Amino acid sequence: MLSDVYRQYIACLNAQDWASLGMFVHDALQYNGRALTLDDYREMLKRDFREIPDLFFDIRLLIEEPPRIACRLRFECTPKADFLGLHVDGKRVVFCENVFYAFRDGKIDNVWSVIDKAAIEAQL
Amino acid sequence: MLSDVYRQYIACLNAQDWASLGMFVHDALQYNGRALTLDDYREMLKRDFREIPDLFFDIRLLIEEPPRIACRLRFECTPKADFLGLHVDGKRVVFCENVFYAFRDGKIDNVWSVIDKAAIEAQL
Repeated sequence: MLSDVYRQYIACLNAQDWASLGMFVHDALQYNGRALTLDDYREMLKRDFREIPDLFFDIRLLIEEPPRIACRLRFECTPKADFLGLHVDGKRVVFCENVFYAFRDGKIDNVWSVIDKAAIEAQL
Repeated sequence: MLSDVYRQYIACLNAQDWASLGMFVHDALQYNGRALTLDDYREMLKRDFREIPDLFFDIRLLIEEPPRIACRLRFECTPKADFLGLHVDGKRVVFCENVFYAFRDGKIDNVWSVIDKAAIEAQL
């Protein structure tokens, strides 16, 4: 099942198992319409964990229609300073991300993500 | 197919056919964790069209796993004044909404929506 692969991908992120990221993500992908390499994508994720040390991806809704997945992720975390241009500054915030993925040959090659920035603003 | 029902729902919104909304939406629903009546939901949509006269729901991605739907909607429109607390003020903006729906007996009874507010901010 593609959703099983996706759950393994999320477990890989939560474990910060960067060596395994290439098992789930292609060497070249599109992220919100921008071309990224796997290295770019890994650096983006590593930066997220640097800026949010208690970052944890919590799957709340998962819809599968191969080769695509849609997921609603919930975050309850403490960004150290700025996040999405907001001065979160060590406050605990709760927000969701609704995100679509397209898979090719069992690996992600396209991501369309929207993070609920308005929900974070309402908590600051 | 649930996706056919969903496409009819979106056509209903684009036609502002408010008399038919109850064919697609239950009398009581949850919207981003908030309890709404069908009347509340209709009023929210009517207000959106008042504030954004050229509002048009454009389906870009649609994933179906009954009883749930996930959709990425694209908007290219001209909010007259404020939108999501931003002073859009008649500027043409392009943004997406990633949204999940749960259906019961063929009608929507739960919506989880995230609008890409950061994308709009970047255009102002």
